[in-house]
Amino acid sequence: MTVGVLGGGQLARMLALAGRPLGRRFLFLEPASNPPVASLGEVVRGSYDDPVCLNRIAAAADVVTFEFEAVPAKAVRRLAAEVPVHPSPAALAAAQDRRAEKRLFQELGIPTARSCPVDGVGDLAAALAATGLPAVVKTRRFGYDGKGQAVVRSPEEAAAAVKALGPRLIAESFVDFERELSVLGAAGLDGSRVFYPLTENHHRDGLLRASYAPAPDVSAGLQAEAEVLAGKIMDRLGYVGVLAVELFQSGGRLLANEMAPRVHNSGHWTIDAAGASQFENHVRAVTGLALAPPAARGPTAMLNVIGEMPDLPVLAAVPGAHVHLYDKTPRPGRKLGHVNVTGPDAEAVMETAASVWRLLPGAGILPPPSKSKPADGASRRTLVSRPVAFAPELGDD
Amino acid sequence: MTVGVLGGGQLARMLALAGRPLGRRFLFLEPASNPPVASLGEVVRGSYDDPVCLNRIAAAADVVTFEFEAVPAKAVRRLAAEVPVHPSPAALAAAQDRRAEKRLFQELGIPTARSCPVDGVGDLAAALAATGLPAVVKTRRFGYDGKGQAVVRSPEEAAAAVKALGPRLIAESFVDFERELSVLGAAGLDGSRVFYPLTENHHRDGLLRASYAPAPDVSAGLQAEAEVLAGKIMDRLGYVGVLAVELFQSGGRLLANEMAPRVHNSGHWTIDAAGASQFENHVRAVTGLALAPPAARGPTAMLNVIGEMPDLPVLAAVPGAHVHLYDKTPRPGRKLGHVNVTGPDAEAVMETAASVWRLLPGAGILPPPSKSKPADGASRRTLVSRPVAFAPELGDD
Repeated sequence: MTVGVLGGGQLARMLALAGRPLGRRFLFLEPASNPPVASLGEVVRGSYDDPVCLNRIAAAADVVTFEFEAVPAKAVRRLAAEVPVHPSPAALAAAQDRRAEKRLFQELGIPTARSCPVDGVGDLAAALAATGLPAVVKTRRFGYDGKGQAVVRSPEEAAAAVKALGPRLIAESFVDFERELSVLGAAGLDGSRVFYPLTENHHRDGLLRASYAPAPDVSAGLQAEAEVLAGKIMDRLGYVGVLAVELFQSGGRLLANEMAPRVHNSGHWTIDAAGASQFENHVRAVTGLALAPPAARGPTAMLNVIGEMPDLPVLAAVPGAHVHLYDKTPRPGRKLGHVNVTGPDAEAVMETAASVWRLLPGAGILPPPSKSKPADGASRRTLVSRPVAFAPELGDD
Repeated sequence: MTVGVLGGGQLARMLALAGRPLGRRFLFLEPASNPPVASLGEVVRGSYDDPVCLNRIAAAADVVTFEFEAVPAKAVRRLAAEVPVHPSPAALAAAQDRRAEKRLFQELGIPTARSCPVDGVGDLAAALAATGLPAVVKTRRFGYDGKGQAVVRSPEEAAAAVKALGPRLIAESFVDFERELSVLGAAGLDGSRVFYPLTENHHRDGLLRASYAPAPDVSAGLQAEAEVLAGKIMDRLGYVGVLAVELFQSGGRLLANEMAPRVHNSGHWTIDAAGASQFENHVRAVTGLALAPPAARGPTAMLNVIGEMPDLPVLAAVPGAHVHLYDKTPRPGRKLGHVNVTGPDAEAVMETAASVWRLLPGAGILPPPSKSKPADGASRRTLVSRPVAFAPELGDD
């Protein structure tokens, strides 16, 4: 069985590495030369909306999936007319537009930050009245890794952000969260579901830097809340494949921030420390196999390699460091790889993670997991914001 | 860094799957069309002694290794003149000839069955006087998976075997072992060593069917004995890479049966249940990286898929079954894949292994691990043989 993948980056690469042992073959559509999937399957080089390329994928693939949500919805619908596409074009469309995404959360009763569409500075006054300040102004489409968004603290900053970011925006309440979590689950073609334990994520400059899994101090209730929330989205979208939902934890509750209809950076730890990786379960799901057990085997830290390559022999010599490189040319802010750190207990993992972190150029200070935060529960966000509203979003119409 | 691999079968495939995350690229020399390594790197199609192909490998690879020991020693020496080859041509040569291998064991004081070279029926009387009966008559070179050998119970059977197998043979005492074990270790370029826990192996018709790891009922002394034995071979051969030594356990002692200067079927469990797989450690070793911790994470059963493909969706639905297929066309006696079974304890693993085994066409009865053997220590071999000699081999000159 051949899986067509739109995109040839690291996520597609890790899908192939996980899928080949299951006897799945891969065919990638990728515009860039020498992508991370080079030599992991056939690479059709071309743009995502090139009809000739799309016809080749449709003809050769038994099923099609995608590694990122910015792929043109029209191309995906075109493919879906000829070959099964998972997740569905509807799931892709819902994740492509932040307004549609917020509406979906709202309809499903999933708590999320207050938000309001902004199509120009003229909409700002009403929007900020709904969101309060500070707020986050984001492009509705094609934002990723912190790109296409700005935190604004005043109406003037908001106006500047709207001018800089363009016409189709959304303003959201700034959430004074305690920590960022993500829930990853997979939905099978047969309707079965598995969910990975919640992962705690740490960003800097809009980029995920470190994840800890299973997230420390997660009650069974919180895990269940996350699974119910993700399950509702799967139900509504007739979802097949891995779904990631980024969450804010605030005052013991979860708010959905955004969803990704694909394998996700915060699930990379599953390669070395879960019963089956998110990549294997995505391949299983979209090719009609049963899902595999997702349980974590122990505590893990996932550290991203960003911008500059570490000294591989030195990094690879750290016991418990599992190195995953993507064969990408270094460039500032570019994800080049990740290191999964495993060990007998959380303390050992943190010790090894600190050693690994020091070997990553420009990594700065390793953000500690929430367990080691001051006991007074002080937020790690330096911005002061008004208390978050758990009500469904307002004014989104 | 590009690794040239002589051979493009499942072992080369799994080397690539383990090596790509370390940023290693692969180039294979393989005579067959559509081999298991297809789409896992560049495949140079040609015979192992084609000078044009060898030149291409030498020009493009930073280091060369091999996935099987039948590769022509001359070709390997030719490559070694231009590019580092690990394990060394000397290690390959020692493993290619059973007589050289026996001599090596003998020189290193490693217990092994008595043996005697046989170049024709005229040598038989002296050889059988040394080995006793029953004996095993084997070709000296290019035997694998039970091919090129015969168990003989009488001088007449021995004469028939010699006529059938050809001129360059060796006769060995038939060892009345309690069980077959193997020790796998890796030697780094920097002289470092790691050893995996002993694995218990079960063959039928000369083919490995099932392995249990860590082998049950292994004392620290037995593990140490195996490591010392493998370490001696590594020392003598200036070894770099993974080395496997097949062992017989008899009366609490270990006898070396044969060695394989490569990753080995009995180490496939390490993909899903060791700190790092044999494939990762072989790539690490030959490309000059530090070796990674080999410890087992728990009990595992490795079951080979031989001859006929199972129903993949049914097989993949067994929780705890990790499926590894090789993209090979089914043929009787051909290894098509393997399934690693993991679980919380040995009992759960055996239960799952039994479920998996029933799904493998023509697998017969799952050989139980030695733990579940009758307590009187009765051999599972039905042949009666004289007590094994632990002395160095006789008459090998």
